[in-house]
Amino acid sequence: MKLSKNISTFLGFDNEYEESKIVVFGSPFDGTTSFRPGTRFASNVMRSESYGLETYSPYLDKDLEDVNVFDGGDLEFPFGNTEKVLAMINEFTLGIVKDGKIPVMIGGEHLVSLPAIKAVYEKHKDMYLIHFDAHTDLRDDYMGEKLSHASVIRRSWDFMGDGKIYQFGIRSGEKQEFEWAKEHTNLTKFSCDGLAEAVKEIGDKPVYITIDLDILDPSIFPGTGTPEPGGITFKEMMEAIKTMQGLNIVGADIVELAPQYDISGVSNAVACKILRELVLAI
Amino acid sequence: MKLSKNISTFLGFDNEYEESKIVVFGSPFDGTTSFRPGTRFASNVMRSESYGLETYSPYLDKDLEDVNVFDGGDLEFPFGNTEKVLAMINEFTLGIVKDGKIPVMIGGEHLVSLPAIKAVYEKHKDMYLIHFDAHTDLRDDYMGEKLSHASVIRRSWDFMGDGKIYQFGIRSGEKQEFEWAKEHTNLTKFSCDGLAEAVKEIGDKPVYITIDLDILDPSIFPGTGTPEPGGITFKEMMEAIKTMQGLNIVGADIVELAPQYDISGVSNAVACKILRELVLAI
Amino acid sequence: MKLSKNISTFLGFDNEYEESKIVVFGSPFDGTTSFRPGTRFASNVMRSESYGLETYSPYLDKDLEDVNVFDGGDLEFPFGNTEKVLAMINEFTLGIVKDGKIPVMIGGEHLVSLPAIKAVYEKHKDMYLIHFDAHTDLRDDYMGEKLSHASVIRRSWDFMGDGKIYQFGIRSGEKQEFEWAKEHTNLTKFSCDGLAEAVKEIGDKPVYITIDLDILDPSIFPGTGTPEPGGITFKEMMEAIKTMQGLNIVGADIVELAPQYDISGVSNAVACKILRELVLAI
Amino acid sequence: MKLSKNISTFLGFDNEYEESKIVVFGSPFDGTTSFRPGTRFASNVMRSESYGLETYSPYLDKDLEDVNVFDGGDLEFPFGNTEKVLAMINEFTLGIVKDGKIPVMIGGEHLVSLPAIKAVYEKHKDMYLIHFDAHTDLRDDYMGEKLSHASVIRRSWDFMGDGKIYQFGIRSGEKQEFEWAKEHTNLTKFSCDGLAEAVKEIGDKPVYITIDLDILDPSIFPGTGTPEPGGITFKEMMEAIKTMQGLNIVGADIVELAPQYDISGVSNAVACKILRELVLAI
Amino acid sequence: MKLSKNISTFLGFDNEYEESKIVVFGSPFDGTTSFRPGTRFASNVMRSESYGLETYSPYLDKDLEDVNVFDGGDLEFPFGNTEKVLAMINEFTLGIVKDGKIPVMIGGEHLVSLPAIKAVYEKHKDMYLIHFDAHTDLRDDYMGEKLSHASVIRRSWDFMGDGKIYQFGIRSGEKQEFEWAKEHTNLTKFSCDGLAEAVKEIGDKPVYITIDLDILDPSIFPGTGTPEPGGITFKEMMEAIKTMQGLNIVGADIVELAPQYDISGVSNAVACKILRELVLAI
Amino acid sequence: MKLSKNISTFLGFDNEYEESKIVVFGSPFDGTTSFRPGTRFASNVMRSESYGLETYSPYLDKDLEDVNVFDGGDLEFPFGNTEKVLAMINEFTLGIVKDGKIPVMIGGEHLVSLPAIKAVYEKHKDMYLIHFDAHTDLRDDYMGEKLSHASVIRRSWDFMGDGKIYQFGIRSGEKQEFEWAKEHTNLTKFSCDGLAEAVKEIGDKPVYITIDLDILDPSIFPGTGTPEPGGITFKEMMEAIKTMQGLNIVGADIVELAPQYDISGVSNAVACKILRELVLAI
Repeated sequence: MKLSKNISTFLGFDNEYEESKIVVFGSPFDGTTSFRPGTRFASNVMRSESYGLETYSPYLDKDLEDVNVFDGGDLEFPFGNTEKVLAMINEFTLGIVKDGKIPVMIGGEHLVSLPAIKAVYEKHKDMYLIHFDAHTDLRDDYMGEKLSHASVIRRSWDFMGDGKIYQFGIRSGEKQEFEWAKEHTNLTKFSCDGLAEAVKEIGDKPVYITIDLDILDPSIFPGTGTPEPGGITFKEMMEAIKTMQGLNIVGADIVELAPQYDISGVSNAVACKILRELVLAI
Repeated sequence: MKLSKNISTFLGFDNEYEESKIVVFGSPFDGTTSFRPGTRFASNVMRSESYGLETYSPYLDKDLEDVNVFDGGDLEFPFGNTEKVLAMINEFTLGIVKDGKIPVMIGGEHLVSLPAIKAVYEKHKDMYLIHFDAHTDLRDDYMGEKLSHASVIRRSWDFMGDGKIYQFGIRSGEKQEFEWAKEHTNLTKFSCDGLAEAVKEIGDKPVYITIDLDILDPSIFPGTGTPEPGGITFKEMMEAIKTMQGLNIVGADIVELAPQYDISGVSNAVACKILRELVLAI
Repeated sequence: MKLSKNISTFLGFDNEYEESKIVVFGSPFDGTTSFRPGTRFASNVMRSESYGLETYSPYLDKDLEDVNVFDGGDLEFPFGNTEKVLAMINEFTLGIVKDGKIPVMIGGEHLVSLPAIKAVYEKHKDMYLIHFDAHTDLRDDYMGEKLSHASVIRRSWDFMGDGKIYQFGIRSGEKQEFEWAKEHTNLTKFSCDGLAEAVKEIGDKPVYITIDLDILDPSIFPGTGTPEPGGITFKEMMEAIKTMQGLNIVGADIVELAPQYDISGVSNAVACKILRELVLAI
Repeated sequence: MKLSKNISTFLGFDNEYEESKIVVFGSPFDGTTSFRPGTRFASNVMRSESYGLETYSPYLDKDLEDVNVFDGGDLEFPFGNTEKVLAMINEFTLGIVKDGKIPVMIGGEHLVSLPAIKAVYEKHKDMYLIHFDAHTDLRDDYMGEKLSHASVIRRSWDFMGDGKIYQFGIRSGEKQEFEWAKEHTNLTKFSCDGLAEAVKEIGDKPVYITIDLDILDPSIFPGTGTPEPGGITFKEMMEAIKTMQGLNIVGADIVELAPQYDISGVSNAVACKILRELVLAI
Repeated sequence: MKLSKNISTFLGFDNEYEESKIVVFGSPFDGTTSFRPGTRFASNVMRSESYGLETYSPYLDKDLEDVNVFDGGDLEFPFGNTEKVLAMINEFTLGIVKDGKIPVMIGGEHLVSLPAIKAVYEKHKDMYLIHFDAHTDLRDDYMGEKLSHASVIRRSWDFMGDGKIYQFGIRSGEKQEFEWAKEHTNLTKFSCDGLAEAVKEIGDKPVYITIDLDILDPSIFPGTGTPEPGGITFKEMMEAIKTMQGLNIVGADIVELAPQYDISGVSNAVACKILRELVLAI
Repeated sequence: MKLSKNISTFLGFDNEYEESKIVVFGSPFDGTTSFRPGTRFASNVMRSESYGLETYSPYLDKDLEDVNVFDGGDLEFPFGNTEKVLAMINEFTLGIVKDGKIPVMIGGEHLVSLPAIKAVYEKHKDMYLIHFDAHTDLRDDYMGEKLSHASVIRRSWDFMGDGKIYQFGIRSGEKQEFEWAKEHTNLTKFSCDGLAEAVKEIGDKPVYITIDLDILDPSIFPGTGTPEPGGITFKEMMEAIKTMQGLNIVGADIVELAPQYDISGVSNAVACKILRELVLAI
């Protein structure tokens, strides 16, 4: 017989690196999670469970079989060393970008987005950032730490500057964060209202999309470290992705799935479907 | 003392067979389930937990105490022999139908509907089928098998033919299934829109209702093998049942509850309430 | 070193008794729960997990840091003696009321509201009661017992009388309860429609608010003993609290969280947020 | 067709009352449980899950098919009224005893044993009590309550007196309880050592066996309200039952299974097997 | 960059097929499981979680790094067609055997052992079978089905004949099965006593080892469909593997892990370690 | 009324700091955990659940009421900054030691022991270390990190030197670790054999005891990140503590409880009891 080693990729992401336009990879890091850790398990579980999915999307009327996507597996991190982890993500994402491909990262906690955003920004200095989240993530520091999941958008602003960041679905944060946002970002509370306008404003400029899955209502997405009731529905998320279809997307990530808090598997099914739609939308 | 053996029926379904118009029974089979098995436990758990329910429905303003329903327990199946199981269900349902009663079956996976639908169809050749589901269930075969939960509506079409089948809530399937449906069934994507029209078209013709509970959004019904976000709400389901109240219902089933994936018990409570409303609507 | 004993209060409720206007305490009793016990664990879990919350509410644009609230911990009850438990709650609440403070109690099952309502009523005989719940709670007795979670509003009516009680979100009960309500309370089925009118009618009269958290849809609040699908959303609950902001609230409670039925922790997060908003609204 | 209502009995306990020597019934009460309630679910779950068992015991080389046992289902209790519950158990057990049959009760918390022991004692005043447990259960009162799961053996002693009670496996209690035991009962710490001698001493006198399943090590029996590590193994329990085979057993119970704390189902399998062996040993 | 697809093998089983002496593969089938299905998930979970393991065994003082093992992933089965599944396993195993390699299969339910045993037997007609299990698995049929997990050893006997089969740890079965075993197999109840003698008797004859993991006590292995208390300890299992080290092992399997019944992950850790030791012992 | 803030201490540890000989505190850190995080929740859960315990130990025949113990709650750590966390623990422990009290720390992952051991070592340079664990914890680095839970004993050896460290229960590690141990520590594989001799050798020298709870068999302690079957029993642990009773214990910790992996609560009960015994033994 001729047999080869067991390969495990996300459903339908079964192309070789060279032939792919989109490169998916996992960053299983949850080292600065303050409440309940576990997002490190997300990418692995998503791969395993994605076979419950279909490749065809009735939302976008597209099929994964018509897209070339490569799944490179997960990065392997040292434990307890935040800075080294961020450097590894940055370097890996830079490699993808330099090869002219679009990185789509699976977190991990939200802090992993920072080095990926930075890497894509290196190439696209006029880049916009669309941020879906329950939390502002605008703290200057969190318990004294500058590098924290609660600061990831603030740290992105450090190099992107005013007016480049759109935030949607936000419903949790400190009073000061909401006030800071008024001057520096375009923050929409509770919903995705205004996304269509943002898309128009951005036009054909490059854009990075970061989806903290806790933007979703925990009724449909309980599998996350800090569930925040009052979120958007799955249908609203689908609608948002559809709205962004025409954009010039140069990078994306989905973060903060912590699968072990939802033993029904629903949160994982939600994350898989959003990843499928996101990739189909690019 | 005089004591008799412990009897366990679904709440309020406590009439004798002879005096009942409706006959409830369970078909605890999940042999072709491709993703996560466990629907075999549904009928037993529903019976045990139904005492948390009330007999009165504020939705329909009716009470189970005013209806005669018999609960015959579960069929006992051999394991691993799909064809024998289907034959047993068919025969049992035929017995009920011949006695002039209305069968209401609790699944089990969706494939158990096939022999029940066939049995009722034997008596009512002009019968319509209303199908609530997240999935098309229209595959001609699944991994080479003609008898599969993913083919149950296609197999029903084999003998019912074009124009007799209405499908609602569908949001998952292969591209070909959606295309096939355009010519052979009345398929409504995502919602129950158009149900009122369907009810009008069917008029007083006999109709069989098959409810795959995964039509519901997994936020309210996580306890199923293949949860599909983007489903209908419980209130929409209640509305749908109300809409069908006037129909000449000659058979029905609810399938695909897998209670162990929802340790909160909510999915089971949902299934129990839908069963109560369905029986009250008949 | 100088160290003091470990203190555990609900997030932001860290004032001393003397300086506080609002007094929070727990009544961990679930002795008459008929279906699934466990509400006894609610107050302790809410305290432990509240640190996942923020003190600022973007709904009301208020911050807990601007309010004086004392958290007195839980009452310690004898087990199996319902009457003694109720007497202890009544006495404790009376103490708070006599000190001119507003009691906010965390249940426990709904029966714990009875002695608290009674205690507040002693001082405010013209008091109104706003009742949020999935269940009528209007049974005259439950399996022969007059003191039951299923009778708590009926027992409150015993001394409050007709026209003083508003009920919202009700979707479960016996036929007779719904009929009895027509003459004695203002009952709204399924939703909070009419709350704004009720608020207008009550004006500046004193009012006690009792929130049975199972008014919420179990999709967002599965952690309760008797989940009833078809409930209100979290956003509707937030809206309701906002609507009641201007009222002269003299007492309140939130009951029926049973945290162990929701291992995702979402139900607990919901309860914590409602408690925060409720306190901010007072 | 001819169909009869669904009957649910414990595996192999399918005889009619009149023809049976042993009568099994459930007392689903956990009203004085101080730590974690849930034993009310035990009897129902044991019935449902007993079909995973076989009727033949390789330990005793006996088969349930050779014994006549009747399963009368569960008593239905009012909630929150401890005294009424105990009276109901007492009356029901008396009925069985008067009919010359042997009661075998499934708890519920340990307090349910008290009225059953009392009922059997009415007929057999020279009765002995063999008590398997992790806890002494010898408190005179618990938080002021005389009727408590923590007092059940002390309350039995009230009418049985000194020298009639043997206790095994005890590893938890207050200092005073251990000291009190020295004068009034035969208490063996940690193990079942000395059981063979006790059996010899009792000879052919009538004996009631009460098994609090938490005598077992929680490694094999985690499904109980107050798990106490350091217990006996399942094999030691089997050995103990074998040792008692020759005794003149006039009543028995097994209590304190709380199935929801062990979602693996192992605790329930253990309880079912012990019940099978106990009945075979009688 | 140069990147290759994500590979997922069991820890340390990372050699190519050609260079390997041992070939590991999964047979995720649980179609005849009578009680609680779920063994279909075992091989995938074992692969994912094996990275919690170390490659070095202090029991055998050997390291996986010194052995050449290939992991071919899982076979893909049609659902609901038992015979086709068994044929696929048989054919695949034959391929391995013909290539002169030793198959080590991960189940799945115990029935998957039958076609693997048969395939190895084709080459080694003088083969012995060592069977570790809680259950006899000697039924001639189960609810009318000849091919059942409860019949797998009986079906193996059909072609292996008397005196070739050793059974250890057996503690559950029908009376007739125990009696049948007396004449046809070497059955040891409850323990592995006599294994050393069996090893001596077998000498250097080829031997197939089938380990139904439910031989282990459910205290250490709750993650299985039909837990049977009274099993052997993990240390006894380690001892047994050590005892068999010198044997001429020509095939092996471990079956009946159902990981979802043990959310602690312990059962999976146990299965992984036993697989590591088994492979090191070959 | 006069009321004071809610205090939450471990059962019976209710003395003031000044009057106490023993100081208990929690270090909820799990930042270098490589497999499954969650030990950060241990100390809080242990406090909450300790009320299920009794103050009297029948093992040691001692009562917590006769000992003065202070519970200072948990340290509050920045997330993602390992070095700062270790410095905080070191400083806090030094404070206790300087006040002439004995620190007893609740982890957290095992790395938290390092700064505590170092702090105690500052005062007692002739100190011994008794180490209970499943793992060697002797790696020089783990994925490049010197500060890791897998290196904690190696790092302690860095300043303690040869011959001062006794290790018991070890059953997992790399080959090199076991070999390194032969020259530098006294390592006992699998069991606590030789503890009595160690106690004799140590005599009245100061000794620090570090208990990684995963030394226990996961049958009784599944609630840990990396369960290793083949561990010691609870009774053996009790025996070990008894054996060490006479020692001059100057510091201790128990680490690696991850309560969320054991929803039965047994692991937590085990940890609480070991903490009680440990404190009584000091």
